[in-house]
Amino acid sequence: MFDKGMAKKAAENLKRVREKKPLVHSITNYVTMNYTADALLACGASAVMAHGEEEVEEMVSLADALVLNLGTLTEARVEAMAKAGREAGKRRIPIVLDPVGAGATNLRTRSARKFMRELSIQVIRGNPSEILSLSQLMAKPKGVESMHSVDEAGRAASELAKANHAILAVSGRVDFVTDGIRTCRVHNGSEMMGAMTGAGCTATAVIAAFLTVDSDPLEATATALCYLGVAAEKAAEVSQGPGTFKARLLDALYRMDGETLSLGAKIEIAGGKDNP
Amino acid sequence: MFDKGMAKKAAENLKRVREKKPLVHSITNYVTMNYTADALLACGASAVMAHGEEEVEEMVSLADALVLNLGTLTEARVEAMAKAGREAGKRRIPIVLDPVGAGATNLRTRSARKFMRELSIQVIRGNPSEILSLSQLMAKPKGVESMHSVDEAGRAASELAKANHAILAVSGRVDFVTDGIRTCRVHNGSEMMGAMTGAGCTATAVIAAFLTVDSDPLEATATALCYLGVAAEKAAEVSQGPGTFKARLLDALYRMDGETLSLGAKIEIAGGKDNP
Amino acid sequence: MFDKGMAKKAAENLKRVREKKPLVHSITNYVTMNYTADALLACGASAVMAHGEEEVEEMVSLADALVLNLGTLTEARVEAMAKAGREAGKRRIPIVLDPVGAGATNLRTRSARKFMRELSIQVIRGNPSEILSLSQLMAKPKGVESMHSVDEAGRAASELAKANHAILAVSGRVDFVTDGIRTCRVHNGSEMMGAMTGAGCTATAVIAAFLTVDSDPLEATATALCYLGVAAEKAAEVSQGPGTFKARLLDALYRMDGETLSLGAKIEIAGGKDNP
Repeated sequence: MFDKGMAKKAAENLKRVREKKPLVHSITNYVTMNYTADALLACGASAVMAHGEEEVEEMVSLADALVLNLGTLTEARVEAMAKAGREAGKRRIPIVLDPVGAGATNLRTRSARKFMRELSIQVIRGNPSEILSLSQLMAKPKGVESMHSVDEAGRAASELAKANHAILAVSGRVDFVTDGIRTCRVHNGSEMMGAMTGAGCTATAVIAAFLTVDSDPLEATATALCYLGVAAEKAAEVSQGPGTFKARLLDALYRMDGETLSLGAKIEIAGGKDNP
Repeated sequence: MFDKGMAKKAAENLKRVREKKPLVHSITNYVTMNYTADALLACGASAVMAHGEEEVEEMVSLADALVLNLGTLTEARVEAMAKAGREAGKRRIPIVLDPVGAGATNLRTRSARKFMRELSIQVIRGNPSEILSLSQLMAKPKGVESMHSVDEAGRAASELAKANHAILAVSGRVDFVTDGIRTCRVHNGSEMMGAMTGAGCTATAVIAAFLTVDSDPLEATATALCYLGVAAEKAAEVSQGPGTFKARLLDALYRMDGETLSLGAKIEIAGGKDNP
Repeated sequence: MFDKGMAKKAAENLKRVREKKPLVHSITNYVTMNYTADALLACGASAVMAHGEEEVEEMVSLADALVLNLGTLTEARVEAMAKAGREAGKRRIPIVLDPVGAGATNLRTRSARKFMRELSIQVIRGNPSEILSLSQLMAKPKGVESMHSVDEAGRAASELAKANHAILAVSGRVDFVTDGIRTCRVHNGSEMMGAMTGAGCTATAVIAAFLTVDSDPLEATATALCYLGVAAEKAAEVSQGPGTFKARLLDALYRMDGETLSLGAKIEIAGGKDNP
């Protein structure tokens, strides 16, 4: 059921991230900024957070990947993101979009669509409500939490993937990743991720790191989510609640070895010529 | 000495929060934003942090309660808070004001008073210096820490409560909560809360969640502080210092059961026709 | 090899900080703001973060020290820092500059140099790349991480110290602190500090607290770094990775006693009339 090749690739990608130590430039929300920076360091990547319009182009030119995360958005932030995104496009630096709160406010929905239209986004990761809101379907998420099933959002994701030539990742109990033709389902993770802020933002950051070492963005995305999910499983085993879980998740990302990761990986893959 | 009805109500309110999962919209400071979001999730509520002037009205319209916290304030932030606060008022969404640093700078004191004058604030929670500074008495707090006793601020709180038709909560070793007629004294808590940033901000956030499930805002406030205090006592027992305490406090909020809460509750109530 | 007088002074300075409870006003980046505030509280200092142009002068006038940290910089932030810095200068409140990302972008490098030129900076603390970038040498740091050795940056630090009448501190496996004549090398610390965000920012904050109790800024800086380093060693012993390390480091700062600190201190001092 679970793909052994993908399990092996998860371990390889993690190894490559630790060797390459990619610099991920994040223009991201104030709420989870600290945690996602810590998560990137724990993965073996390095992190720079910079959102000043005066410096984002220069900063992204030093980076290996760019994250655009729409939490705590303002118009000024949208401008900085657009600037950084255009520069990343010119330099073929991969961009990951996290449309936090898309569907909740016009500013978020409109900005997410603008970036999808104007920038070379490689991966979009969100929860079902957010992804549905991008696909022209009506969806009013309750805050940043999901009210829709991953399955319900899967079709929207596939359409968006094809239309945008991007990878769409829908987070849920089982993560759904698609390029519109091939799909991966990642069965790793822990319920504790729903009891902490920033689990989604962290997934987005780890995806960005993995994109820098794998030329197949679908597989980069799926293996990144798998790595985070296996780490979450390990962390949950030694946690007493969401506070200790957050600390232990960083520990688990940091300590993960390739064997544990590939043994724990639960990735299904379907579609494409190799996976009819 | 301690009120059994209030102890029982604390457990009931917690249960209701977990069932309702109220969305608390916080326009709050950058320092403790992450922790208060985590605390809301740990309570069973959900959290959205959004401060863009372009979207605060839309966001608050999705919310069950609004927090206005004056830490790391700027004029732009004051504008966003006023907009969100007016919209909350129209929709009868309860507002909690945390006048962080009132008395320390003109911007903070002036903004707190402006909100008290112009918005329908249901609860104001602060430390003694902050509350005193709102009552026209001179008080220069040393940063955001308290230099005045809760007792000293109690009289100011009662006057402010009457004048503003609001609940005033003064945090301290014993928390003091009043509507100007009835008063609650909450004897729960831990000294470790003074060794971490954001204990006050967290109290404010939890109050907001409790306000959404209890039509009596005095009791909502007192039971919220009691819940946080009992959780802090549990967390302190298994902590080695403020770092582990912060993690363990989230764990304790998350794991708290009704029986533990009502057994641990130490709320005094006085005043009003039932409590002469 | 290690100086006993400095070891003793580290313990004395810590005791004095706990007695004085200095208020440290930080205008600092959004990424590590929460952690550095917690670290200051754990030391026994108190912390206020405020960056609104409308209030920074008033806020710094209440403070015992000012931190200017260039992470997540914008032009508006530079203005607020300049205002606060001038007010601190007038009031002889010590200023510590942390030139995060200097060398990475023009905004950062230019702003750091502007502050060095226009303000009375008492201490500048950075990683080797950042310090090198300030000394007119070319250095493109990879994000905010260091690519240059402390030794390589030592000469630049000495020149900068002389030219700016300031203490220069270069963080690394061994921290290097100089006033251009005397130099201290602090051999305390843990590798785990490289796996968390904000270790440098935390060092800067602790230095600011120590400056308020020691009239010799070189010794204040070296003993602050020593205290943080010994705490990190203790924390690493009981950590499973960077997540638990961050929590345990706050615990260790909070619990540190003078004897443990002076026994663990590994400070070399050289130069000056007493240390030929």
